[in-house]
Amino acid sequence: MKLLRYGSPGHEKPGLLDAQGHIRDLSNHVDDIAGDVLHPESLARLKALDAASLPRVEGNPRIGACVGGTRKFICIGLNYFDHAAETGATVPPEPIIFMKATSAITGPNDAVEIPRGSFKTDWEVELGVVIGKTAKYVSEADAMNHVAGYCVINDVSERAFQAERQGQWTKGKSADTFGPTGPWLVTTDEIPDPQSLRMWLEVNGHRYQNGSTITMVYRVPHLVSYLSRFMSLQPGDIISTGTPPGVGLGQKPPVYLKPGDIMTLGIEGLGQQRQHVVQG
Amino acid sequence: MKLLRYGSPGHEKPGLLDAQGHIRDLSNHVDDIAGDVLHPESLARLKALDAASLPRVEGNPRIGACVGGTRKFICIGLNYFDHAAETGATVPPEPIIFMKATSAITGPNDAVEIPRGSFKTDWEVELGVVIGKTAKYVSEADAMNHVAGYCVINDVSERAFQAERQGQWTKGKSADTFGPTGPWLVTTDEIPDPQSLRMWLEVNGHRYQNGSTITMVYRVPHLVSYLSRFMSLQPGDIISTGTPPGVGLGQKPPVYLKPGDIMTLGIEGLGQQRQHVVQG
Repeated sequence: MKLLRYGSPGHEKPGLLDAQGHIRDLSNHVDDIAGDVLHPESLARLKALDAASLPRVEGNPRIGACVGGTRKFICIGLNYFDHAAETGATVPPEPIIFMKATSAITGPNDAVEIPRGSFKTDWEVELGVVIGKTAKYVSEADAMNHVAGYCVINDVSERAFQAERQGQWTKGKSADTFGPTGPWLVTTDEIPDPQSLRMWLEVNGHRYQNGSTITMVYRVPHLVSYLSRFMSLQPGDIISTGTPPGVGLGQKPPVYLKPGDIMTLGIEGLGQQRQHVVQG
Repeated sequence: MKLLRYGSPGHEKPGLLDAQGHIRDLSNHVDDIAGDVLHPESLARLKALDAASLPRVEGNPRIGACVGGTRKFICIGLNYFDHAAETGATVPPEPIIFMKATSAITGPNDAVEIPRGSFKTDWEVELGVVIGKTAKYVSEADAMNHVAGYCVINDVSERAFQAERQGQWTKGKSADTFGPTGPWLVTTDEIPDPQSLRMWLEVNGHRYQNGSTITMVYRVPHLVSYLSRFMSLQPGDIISTGTPPGVGLGQKPPVYLKPGDIMTLGIEGLGQQRQHVVQG
């Protein structure tokens, strides 16, 4: 099942994508794709609906972030063997955790703003994991029972803010529009193996990132279990699991975003994003 | 005005503390002490109410965190001249920003859980700043127009998780119950100078922290302005502004919390907290 949120920013309605690629409205069944709606039992109820019987949404509405009400936007650093090599870093002996501001979350095709004072705004295609059921001290074996599904995330990053402006990466990860999320929340039943998904990102049609979740160091069940030892996870929380090689910082010389650029990115089975870069 | 939230966890009602120290219920006026209720115009409406006409809450209900619906819990690192000296660190040339998980937020007198696997759980009394109006690229001169008020925060920290388990402090700052917040949100009109408030913290009656916001390096208007260049701030967001000397890590030898300990802490004009330490 592919769940989504459509409509103007802050006023998104819940929907799903039917087998023909049409948006069907879910407003008569749930208020939002958020919180308890992401619980396994709730998802089972939505899956049992006959999509053809739901109102079809006409036109091409804006698509919002595929999950609402997120209270934690947790990221994993240096989590691809080949990306760690690209940045000159070694693979960390356990996961690196940092946070993006939840206010950075936007729709998958909304404009991305270069913050004022930025000269090093960069891209990162990432597999997003959306929590469906509260997780605290869960085992790796049980971890996937707490996951609602997956989505595409662009973990937009300002490298000078992140690394040259005094410790803690949050500073370079949190600007408004730095977290395009979606287009769809694809439930776990559609993605039997999240560790073999092709993923890519292009800027102005040039392919910079061309990887696969197969080179992920710490994998999804481990990440959910690991995180749940340091903080509890709630429905709607997002884990962005790190990026494969090909970020702007890794180019020789480095390449950064400028107003007018177009980013396109996608992950196999999870859909695509397209962002116009503007000056903030 | 001293705003508060009382009742069982997750079901808190809004209230205020009257001049006699009694809780008065605000449920007929606002849904929660959260979001748009924190806007200056909304606060002015609440201040115009006759407290004596509001229903008086009998008994001694649990006090919840003084603000609800927080989407960002932002902390400032090494922000006291004397605390930086204590830890052997130098004062950073600009503020260090990190995030606590919003799921760490609890009431001021709720138990604090030592996470499983922890041997270095520590305390930090801090001045909390609660945002009342969205702030993005605001000047220092305008910053205080975006602040609703102040509160006491205990920025509970696990030092091994924070510093010995791979980069980024979030890992040691985010466990459930690591963010006691309150008892009251004290509006800015009651605190003309937030930079001259005495603050203290005791464990089992021994005073470990005995400082003042006068030794804060980056002050409240600067912090709000500075942060708003890296992320937008929304009503209900909390900024915890750093701790003065006397944390457990700074003792010789270091002292950490153990089950059965009692923490008491407070800030002049903002009230006190009391936490029983338990094993998580």
